Amino acid sequence: MGKFITVEGIEGVGKTTNLAWLVECLEAAGIDYIQTREPGGTALAEQIRELLLTPREENMHALTELLLVFAARAQHLEQRIKPALQRGQWVVCDRFTDATYAYQGGGRNLDKQAIATLETLVQGSLRPDLVLLLDIEPAVGLARARKRGEPDRFEQEAISFFAAVRDEYLRRAAADPSRYLIIDAGQELSDVQACLKQELSKFILKARPPVTQNP
Amino acid sequence: MGKFITVEGIEGVGKTTNLAWLVECLEAAGIDYIQTREPGGTALAEQIRELLLTPREENMHALTELLLVFAARAQHLEQRIKPALQRGQWVVCDRFTDATYAYQGGGRNLDKQAIATLETLVQGSLRPDLVLLLDIEPAVGLARARKRGEPDRFEQEAISFFAAVRDEYLRRAAADPSRYLIIDAGQELSDVQACLKQELSKFILKARPPVTQNP
Repeated sequence: MGKFITVEGIEGVGKTTNLAWLVECLEAAGIDYIQTREPGGTALAEQIRELLLTPREENMHALTELLLVFAARAQHLEQRIKPALQRGQWVVCDRFTDATYAYQGGGRNLDKQAIATLETLVQGSLRPDLVLLLDIEPAVGLARARKRGEPDRFEQEAISFFAAVRDEYLRRAAADPSRYLIIDAGQELSDVQACLKQELSKFILKARPPVTQNP
Repeated sequence: MGKFITVEGIEGVGKTTNLAWLVECLEAAGIDYIQTREPGGTALAEQIRELLLTPREENMHALTELLLVFAARAQHLEQRIKPALQRGQWVVCDRFTDATYAYQGGGRNLDKQAIATLETLVQGSLRPDLVLLLDIEPAVGLARARKRGEPDRFEQEAISFFAAVRDEYLRRAAADPSRYLIIDAGQELSDVQACLKQELSKFILKARPPVTQNP
Protein backbone atom coordinates (compact mmCIF):
# COMPACT_ATOMS: atom_id res chain seq x y z
CA MET A 1 0.00 0.00 0.00
CA GLY A 2 1.14 3.50 -0.83
CA LYS A 3 1.05 6.32 1.72
CA PHE A 4 -1.70 8.93 1.80
CA ILE A 5 -0.53 12.49 2.49
CA THR A 6 -2.91 15.44 2.66
CA VAL A 7 -2.14 19.14 2.74
CA GLU A 8 -4.56 21.34 4.62
CA GLY A 9 -4.98 25.00 5.43
CA ILE A 10 -7.18 28.02 4.91
CA GLU A 11 -7.27 30.26 1.84
CA GLY A 12 -4.00 32.01 1.00
CA VAL A 13 -1.83 29.73 3.08
CA GLY A 14 0.32 28.81 0.08
CA LYS A 15 -0.98 25.34 -0.64
CA THR A 16 -0.27 25.41 -4.38
CA THR A 17 3.37 26.48 -4.01
CA ASN A 18 4.01 24.09 -1.16
CA LEU A 19 2.32 21.17 -2.88
CA ALA A 20 4.64 21.69 -5.85
CA TRP A 21 7.59 21.64 -3.46
CA LEU A 22 6.30 18.53 -1.72
CA VAL A 23 6.01 16.47 -4.89
CA GLU A 24 9.47 17.69 -5.91
CA CYS A 25 10.79 16.18 -2.67
CA LEU A 26 8.91 12.92 -3.36
CA GLU A 27 10.38 12.77 -6.85
CA ALA A 28 13.88 13.38 -5.49
CA ALA A 29 13.31 10.44 -3.14
CA GLY A 30 12.25 8.25 -6.09
CA ILE A 31 8.72 7.75 -4.82
CA ASP A 32 5.93 6.94 -7.28
CA TYR A 33 2.96 9.18 -6.50
CA ILE A 34 -0.17 10.86 -7.83
CA GLN A 35 -1.19 14.42 -6.96
CA THR A 36 -4.86 15.24 -6.66
CA ARG A 37 -7.29 17.56 -4.90
CA GLU A 38 -10.61 17.81 -3.09
CA PRO A 39 -13.32 18.49 -3.72
CA GLY A 40 -12.59 17.02 -7.16
CA GLY A 41 -10.04 14.62 -8.58
CA THR A 42 -12.30 12.96 -11.18
CA ALA A 43 -14.41 14.51 -13.96
CA LEU A 44 -17.64 13.95 -12.01
CA ALA A 45 -16.16 15.07 -8.68
CA GLU A 46 -14.88 18.23 -10.39
CA GLN A 47 -18.46 18.95 -11.52
CA ILE A 48 -19.54 18.63 -7.89
CA ARG A 49 -16.67 21.00 -6.96
CA GLU A 50 -18.13 23.54 -9.39
CA LEU A 51 -21.50 23.31 -7.64
CA LEU A 52 -19.77 23.83 -4.29
CA LEU A 53 -17.57 26.79 -5.26
CA THR A 54 -19.71 28.80 -7.66
CA PRO A 55 -21.48 31.71 -5.97
CA ARG A 56 -25.23 31.56 -6.67
CA GLU A 57 -28.40 33.37 -5.70
CA GLU A 58 -29.96 30.31 -4.03
CA ASN A 59 -28.52 29.89 -0.55
CA MET A 60 -26.84 26.48 -0.26
CA HIS A 61 -27.97 24.77 2.93
CA ALA A 62 -25.00 23.66 5.10
CA LEU A 63 -26.17 20.04 5.06
CA THR A 64 -26.40 20.12 1.25
CA GLU A 65 -22.82 21.37 1.18
CA LEU A 66 -21.69 18.60 3.53
CA LEU A 67 -23.38 15.87 1.47
CA LEU A 68 -21.98 17.23 -1.80
CA VAL A 69 -18.48 17.22 -0.30
CA PHE A 70 -18.83 13.57 0.69
CA ALA A 71 -20.45 12.63 -2.65
CA ALA A 72 -17.39 14.01 -4.44
CA ARG A 73 -15.14 12.23 -1.92
CA ALA A 74 -16.83 8.84 -2.41
CA GLN A 75 -16.25 9.14 -6.15
CA HIS A 76 -12.65 10.32 -5.76
CA LEU A 77 -11.80 7.53 -3.33
CA GLU A 78 -13.21 4.75 -5.51
CA GLN A 79 -11.94 6.06 -8.82
CA ARG A 80 -8.52 7.41 -7.95
CA ILE A 81 -7.26 7.34 -4.36
CA LYS A 82 -7.86 3.71 -3.42
CA PRO A 83 -6.68 2.28 -6.77
CA ALA A 84 -3.46 4.33 -6.53
CA LEU A 85 -2.76 3.28 -2.93
CA GLN A 86 -3.45 -0.35 -3.86
CA ARG A 87 -0.95 -0.11 -6.71
CA GLY A 88 1.60 1.08 -4.13
CA GLN A 89 1.59 4.70 -5.31
CA TRP A 90 1.63 7.48 -2.78
CA VAL A 91 -1.24 9.95 -2.94
CA VAL A 92 -0.71 13.64 -2.27
CA CYS A 93 -4.07 15.35 -1.90
CA ASP A 94 -4.84 19.07 -1.65
CA ARG A 95 -7.39 18.97 1.19
CA PHE A 96 -9.41 16.00 2.45
CA THR A 97 -11.75 15.21 5.33
CA ASP A 98 -9.93 17.44 7.81
CA ALA A 99 -11.12 20.31 5.63
CA THR A 100 -14.68 19.05 6.06
CA TYR A 101 -14.34 19.10 9.85
CA ALA A 102 -12.74 22.56 9.61
CA TYR A 103 -15.04 24.23 7.05
CA GLN A 104 -18.39 22.50 7.54
CA GLY A 105 -17.84 21.63 11.21
CA GLY A 106 -15.86 24.66 12.46
CA GLY A 107 -16.93 27.24 9.87
CA ARG A 108 -20.58 26.23 9.32
CA ASN A 109 -21.04 24.85 12.82
CA LEU A 110 -22.48 21.54 11.61
CA ASP A 111 -22.64 18.65 14.09
CA LYS A 112 -19.22 16.92 14.17
CA GLN A 113 -20.92 13.61 14.89
CA ALA A 114 -22.77 13.86 11.56
CA ILE A 115 -19.43 14.46 9.82
CA ALA A 116 -17.91 11.48 11.61
CA THR A 117 -20.84 9.29 10.52
CA LEU A 118 -20.37 10.28 6.88
CA GLU A 119 -16.61 9.84 7.19
CA THR A 120 -17.07 6.23 8.29
CA LEU A 121 -19.77 5.58 5.68
CA VAL A 122 -17.58 6.86 2.82
CA GLN A 123 -14.06 6.01 3.97
CA GLY A 124 -14.47 3.00 6.23
CA SER A 125 -11.24 3.02 8.23
CA LEU A 126 -9.18 4.89 5.60
CA ARG A 127 -7.49 7.98 7.04
CA PRO A 128 -4.50 10.01 5.78
CA ASP A 129 -1.15 8.69 7.00
CA LEU A 130 0.20 12.22 7.27
CA VAL A 131 -1.63 15.56 7.38
CA LEU A 132 0.50 18.64 6.72
CA LEU A 133 -1.39 21.58 8.16
CA LEU A 134 -0.15 24.90 6.79
CA ASP A 135 -1.13 27.40 9.42
CA ILE A 136 -1.49 31.16 9.09
CA GLU A 137 -3.39 34.08 10.60
CA PRO A 138 -6.69 34.32 8.69
CA ALA A 139 -6.17 38.06 8.03
CA VAL A 140 -2.83 37.34 6.34
CA GLY A 141 -4.15 34.38 4.34
CA LEU A 142 -7.26 36.18 3.17
CA ALA A 143 -5.31 39.26 2.10
CA ARG A 144 -3.19 36.96 -0.10
CA ALA A 145 -6.18 34.98 -1.44
CA ARG A 146 -8.13 38.09 -2.37
CA LYS A 147 -5.40 39.25 -4.72
CA ARG A 148 -6.17 36.23 -6.95
CA GLY A 149 -9.35 37.60 -8.58
CA GLU A 150 -13.03 36.81 -8.16
CA PRO A 151 -13.62 35.16 -4.77
CA ASP A 152 -15.37 31.77 -4.80
CA ARG A 153 -18.32 30.93 -2.54
CA PHE A 154 -16.04 30.18 0.41
CA GLU A 155 -13.65 33.09 -0.11
CA GLN A 156 -16.66 35.39 0.19
CA GLU A 157 -17.06 34.41 3.86
CA ALA A 158 -16.18 36.79 6.70
CA ILE A 159 -12.91 36.56 8.61
CA SER A 160 -14.73 35.07 11.62
CA PHE A 161 -15.58 32.07 9.43
CA PHE A 162 -11.90 31.46 8.65
CA ALA A 163 -10.94 31.96 12.29
CA ALA A 164 -13.38 29.15 13.19
CA VAL A 165 -11.99 26.99 10.35
CA ARG A 166 -8.44 27.52 11.57
CA ASP A 167 -9.37 26.77 15.18
CA GLU A 168 -10.87 23.44 14.19
CA TYR A 169 -7.81 22.55 12.10
CA LEU A 170 -5.53 23.33 15.05
CA ARG A 171 -7.76 21.46 17.47
CA ARG A 172 -7.65 18.33 15.33
CA ALA A 173 -3.89 18.56 14.84
CA ALA A 174 -3.33 18.95 18.59
CA ALA A 175 -5.52 15.92 19.32
CA ASP A 176 -3.45 13.54 17.16
CA PRO A 177 0.17 14.73 16.89
CA SER A 178 1.32 11.38 15.46
CA ARG A 179 -0.52 12.01 12.17
CA TYR A 180 -0.61 15.82 12.00
CA LEU A 181 2.20 18.28 11.47
CA ILE A 182 1.59 21.98 11.90
CA ILE A 183 3.79 24.12 9.65
CA ASP A 184 3.99 27.85 10.30
CA ALA A 185 3.12 29.22 6.86
CA GLY A 186 3.72 32.79 8.00
CA GLN A 187 7.49 32.25 7.77
CA GLU A 188 9.61 33.04 4.73
CA LEU A 189 8.82 30.57 1.94
CA SER A 190 12.35 29.13 2.09
CA ASP A 191 11.84 28.36 5.79
CA VAL A 192 8.43 26.76 5.14
CA GLN A 193 10.03 24.60 2.45
CA ALA A 194 12.93 23.62 4.69
CA CYS A 195 10.43 22.52 7.35
CA LEU A 196 8.36 20.55 4.86
CA LYS A 197 11.42 18.80 3.45
CA GLN A 198 12.68 17.92 6.92
CA GLU A 199 9.34 16.48 8.04
CA LEU A 200 8.76 14.64 4.78
CA SER A 201 12.23 13.07 4.99
CA LYS A 202 11.46 11.74 8.46
CA PHE A 203 8.13 10.36 7.23
CA ILE A 204 9.74 8.69 4.20
CA LEU A 205 12.42 7.14 6.41
CA LYS A 206 9.76 5.67 8.68
CA ALA A 207 7.69 4.44 5.72
CA ARG A 208 10.63 2.95 3.88
CA PRO A 209 13.35 2.10 6.38
CA PRO A 210 16.73 1.53 4.69
CA VAL A 211 17.33 -2.14 3.90
CA THR A 212 20.10 -3.57 6.08
CA GLN A 213 22.56 -5.60 4.05
CA ASN A 214 22.86 -9.19 5.21
CA PRO A 215 26.45 -10.27 5.61
CA MET B 1 -49.08 22.11 8.93
CA GLY B 2 -49.91 21.01 5.40
CA LYS B 3 -49.91 17.37 4.36
CA PHE B 4 -47.06 15.75 2.48
CA ILE B 5 -48.08 13.35 -0.31
CA THR B 6 -45.56 11.51 -2.47
CA VAL B 7 -46.11 9.53 -5.63
CA GLU B 8 -43.78 6.64 -6.27
CA GLY B 9 -43.22 3.99 -8.90
CA ILE B 10 -40.81 2.71 -11.51
CA GLU B 11 -40.27 4.12 -15.00
CA GLY B 12 -43.33 4.11 -17.27
CA VAL B 13 -45.84 3.67 -14.46
CA GLY B 14 -47.72 6.83 -15.48
CA LYS B 15 -46.55 9.20 -12.77
CA THR B 16 -46.86 12.37 -14.86
CA THR B 17 -50.44 11.71 -15.95
CA ASN B 18 -51.54 10.58 -12.51
CA LEU B 19 -49.84 13.50 -10.76
CA ALA B 20 -51.81 15.87 -12.99
CA TRP B 21 -54.99 14.04 -12.01
CA LEU B 22 -54.06 14.12 -8.33
CA VAL B 23 -53.58 17.89 -8.22
CA GLU B 24 -56.82 18.32 -10.15
CA CYS B 25 -58.56 16.45 -7.32
CA LEU B 26 -56.82 18.64 -4.72
CA GLU B 27 -57.92 21.77 -6.56
CA ALA B 28 -61.49 20.50 -6.75
CA ALA B 29 -61.37 20.02 -2.96
CA GLY B 30 -60.14 23.61 -2.53
CA ILE B 31 -56.78 22.60 -1.07
CA ASP B 32 -53.80 24.95 -1.38
CA TYR B 33 -50.80 22.93 -2.56
CA ILE B 34 -47.46 22.98 -4.35
CA GLN B 35 -46.33 20.31 -6.79
CA THR B 36 -42.65 19.42 -6.95
CA ARG B 37 -40.29 16.54 -7.75
CA GLU B 38 -37.19 14.69 -6.67
CA PRO B 39 -34.37 14.72 -7.29
CA GLY B 40 -34.81 18.44 -7.91
CA GLY B 41 -37.33 21.06 -6.87
CA THR B 42 -34.91 24.00 -6.58
CA ALA B 43 -32.44 25.42 -9.13
CA LEU B 44 -29.47 23.88 -7.29
CA ALA B 45 -31.22 20.55 -6.66
CA GLU B 46 -32.13 20.40 -10.37
CA GLN B 47 -28.42 20.78 -11.19
CA ILE B 48 -27.74 17.81 -8.91
CA ARG B 49 -30.54 15.93 -10.75
CA GLU B 50 -28.70 16.55 -14.01
CA LEU B 51 -25.54 15.01 -12.54
CA LEU B 52 -27.59 12.00 -11.44
CA LEU B 53 -29.49 11.38 -14.67
CA THR B 54 -26.99 12.22 -17.41
CA PRO B 55 -25.26 9.15 -18.81
CA ARG B 56 -21.46 9.59 -18.65
CA GLU B 57 -18.32 7.64 -19.34
CA GLU B 58 -17.12 7.74 -15.71
CA ASN B 59 -18.94 5.11 -13.70
CA MET B 60 -20.83 6.76 -10.83
CA HIS B 61 -20.14 4.90 -7.59
CA ALA B 62 -23.39 3.82 -5.84
CA LEU B 63 -22.44 5.69 -2.69
CA THR B 64 -21.80 8.87 -4.70
CA GLU B 65 -25.27 8.47 -6.18
CA LEU B 66 -26.80 8.02 -2.73
CA LEU B 67 -25.07 11.11 -1.31
CA LEU B 68 -26.04 13.24 -4.32
CA VAL B 69 -29.67 12.18 -3.89
CA PHE B 70 -29.64 13.25 -0.24
CA ALA B 71 -27.73 16.48 -1.01
CA ALA B 72 -30.52 17.44 -3.43
CA ARG B 73 -33.11 16.37 -0.85
CA ALA B 74 -31.58 18.48 1.95
CA GLN B 75 -31.75 21.52 -0.33
CA HIS B 76 -35.28 20.77 -1.50
CA LEU B 77 -36.56 20.25 2.05
CA GLU B 78 -35.09 23.48 3.41
CA GLN B 79 -35.92 25.67 0.44
CA ARG B 80 -39.35 24.41 -0.60
CA ILE B 81 -40.97 21.48 1.18
CA LYS B 82 -40.69 22.57 4.82
CA PRO B 83 -41.60 26.23 4.16
CA ALA B 84 -44.71 25.15 2.22
CA LEU B 85 -45.83 22.67 4.92
CA GLN B 86 -45.27 25.34 7.57
CA ARG B 87 -47.45 27.79 5.61
CA GLY B 88 -50.17 25.13 5.68
CA GLN B 89 -49.83 24.20 2.01
CA TRP B 90 -49.98 20.59 0.97
CA VAL B 91 -46.96 19.27 -0.91
CA VAL B 92 -47.33 16.76 -3.74
CA CYS B 93 -43.93 15.36 -4.65
CA ASP B 94 -42.98 13.14 -7.58
CA ARG B 95 -40.74 10.63 -5.75
CA PHE B 96 -39.04 11.02 -2.37
CA THR B 97 -37.06 8.85 0.05
CA ASP B 98 -39.01 5.67 -0.74
CA ALA B 99 -37.42 5.95 -4.18
CA THR B 100 -34.01 6.03 -2.51
CA TYR B 101 -34.74 2.83 -0.62
CA ALA B 102 -36.10 1.29 -3.83
CA TYR B 103 -33.45 2.44 -6.34
CA GLN B 104 -30.28 2.75 -4.28
CA GLY B 105 -31.26 0.13 -1.68
CA GLY B 106 -33.18 -2.40 -3.81
CA GLY B 107 -31.70 -1.63 -7.23
CA ARG B 108 -28.08 -0.86 -6.28
CA ASN B 109 -28.07 -3.12 -3.24
CA LEU B 110 -26.71 -0.43 -0.91
CA ASP B 111 -26.98 -1.02 2.84
CA LYS B 112 -30.47 0.03 4.00
CA GLN B 113 -29.06 1.08 7.34
CA ALA B 114 -26.86 3.65 5.59
CA ILE B 115 -29.95 5.00 3.82
CA ALA B 116 -31.84 5.15 7.13
CA THR B 117 -28.93 7.06 8.72
CA LEU B 118 -28.96 9.64 5.94
CA GLU B 119 -32.75 9.84 6.07
CA THR B 120 -32.62 10.79 9.75
CA LEU B 121 -29.71 13.19 9.22
CA VAL B 122 -31.49 15.05 6.43
CA GLN B 123 -35.16 14.74 7.38
CA GLY B 124 -35.17 14.40 11.15
CA SER B 125 -38.59 12.88 11.82
CA LEU B 126 -40.25 14.24 8.67
CA ARG B 127 -41.89 11.48 6.60
CA PRO B 128 -44.62 11.65 3.93
CA ASP B 129 -48.14 11.51 5.34
CA LEU B 130 -49.31 9.49 2.33
CA VAL B 131 -47.32 7.52 -0.23
CA LEU B 132 -49.18 6.57 -3.40
CA LEU B 133 -47.28 3.69 -4.97
CA LEU B 134 -48.18 3.18 -8.61
CA ASP B 135 -47.33 -0.44 -9.27
CA ILE B 136 -46.73 -2.17 -12.58
CA GLU B 137 -44.82 -5.09 -14.07
CA PRO B 138 -41.33 -3.78 -14.92
CA ALA B 139 -41.56 -5.16 -18.48
CA VAL B 140 -44.75 -3.17 -19.11
CA GLY B 141 -43.40 0.02 -17.51
CA LEU B 142 -40.08 -0.12 -19.32
CA ALA B 143 -41.71 -0.72 -22.69
CA ARG B 144 -43.74 2.47 -22.11
CA ALA B 145 -40.75 4.49 -20.83
CA ARG B 146 -38.53 3.51 -23.74
CA LYS B 147 -40.92 5.07 -26.22
CA ARG B 148 -40.08 8.50 -24.76
CA GLY B 149 -36.69 8.98 -26.42
CA GLU B 150 -33.12 8.82 -25.14
CA PRO B 151 -33.00 6.78 -21.92
CA ASP B 152 -31.42 8.49 -18.89
CA ARG B 153 -28.77 6.83 -16.67
CA PHE B 154 -31.42 4.87 -14.75
CA GLU B 155 -33.56 3.93 -17.74
CA GLN B 156 -30.47 2.27 -19.21
CA GLU B 157 -30.51 -0.33 -16.42
CA ALA B 158 -31.54 -3.96 -17.06
CA ILE B 159 -35.01 -5.25 -16.22
CA SER B 160 -33.61 -7.15 -13.19
CA PHE B 161 -32.71 -3.74 -11.69
CA PHE B 162 -36.33 -2.54 -11.97
CA ALA B 163 -37.62 -5.83 -10.61
CA ALA B 164 -35.46 -5.25 -7.49
CA VAL B 165 -36.67 -1.62 -7.28
CA ARG B 166 -40.30 -2.74 -7.48
CA ASP B 167 -39.79 -5.46 -4.87
CA GLU B 168 -38.37 -2.95 -2.40
CA TYR B 169 -41.25 -0.53 -3.07
CA LEU B 170 -43.78 -3.31 -2.43
CA ARG B 171 -41.92 -4.52 0.67
CA ARG B 172 -41.99 -1.01 2.19
CA ALA B 173 -45.67 -0.52 1.33
CA ALA B 174 -46.59 -3.85 2.91
CA ALA B 175 -44.68 -2.99 6.08
CA ASP B 176 -46.65 0.22 6.75
CA PRO B 177 -50.15 0.02 5.22
CA SER B 178 -51.33 3.06 7.20
CA ARG B 179 -49.13 5.41 5.13
CA TYR B 180 -48.79 3.54 1.85
CA LEU B 181 -51.39 2.84 -0.83
CA ILE B 182 -50.61 0.49 -3.67
CA ILE B 183 -52.43 1.38 -6.87
CA ASP B 184 -52.47 -1.12 -9.73
CA ALA B 185 -51.18 1.01 -12.59
CA GLY B 186 -51.67 -1.78 -15.09
CA GLN B 187 -55.45 -1.10 -15.13
CA GLU B 188 -57.18 1.17 -17.62
CA LEU B 189 -56.26 4.79 -16.90
CA SER B 190 -59.86 5.65 -15.97
CA ASP B 191 -59.77 2.90 -13.33
CA VAL B 192 -56.41 4.10 -11.96
CA GLN B 193 -57.85 7.61 -11.71
CA ALA B 194 -61.04 6.39 -10.01
CA CYS B 195 -58.87 4.57 -7.43
CA LEU B 196 -56.68 7.60 -6.85
CA LYS B 197 -59.68 9.91 -6.42
CA GLN B 198 -61.33 7.49 -4.00
CA GLU B 199 -58.22 7.10 -1.83
CA LEU B 200 -57.43 10.81 -1.91
CA SER B 201 -60.99 11.67 -0.85
CA LYS B 202 -60.65 9.40 2.18
CA PHE B 203 -57.30 10.97 3.05
CA ILE B 204 -58.69 14.51 2.72
CA LEU B 205 -61.66 13.62 4.89
CA LYS B 206 -59.34 12.32 7.61
CA ALA B 207 -57.04 15.35 7.32
CA ARG B 208 -59.88 17.88 7.33
CA PRO B 209 -62.91 16.36 9.06
CA PRO B 210 -66.14 18.27 8.32
CA VAL B 211 -66.98 20.86 10.99
CA THR B 212 -70.05 19.79 12.99
CA GLN B 213 -72.52 22.65 13.41
CA ASN B 214 -73.27 23.48 17.01
CA PRO B 215 -77.01 23.80 17.69
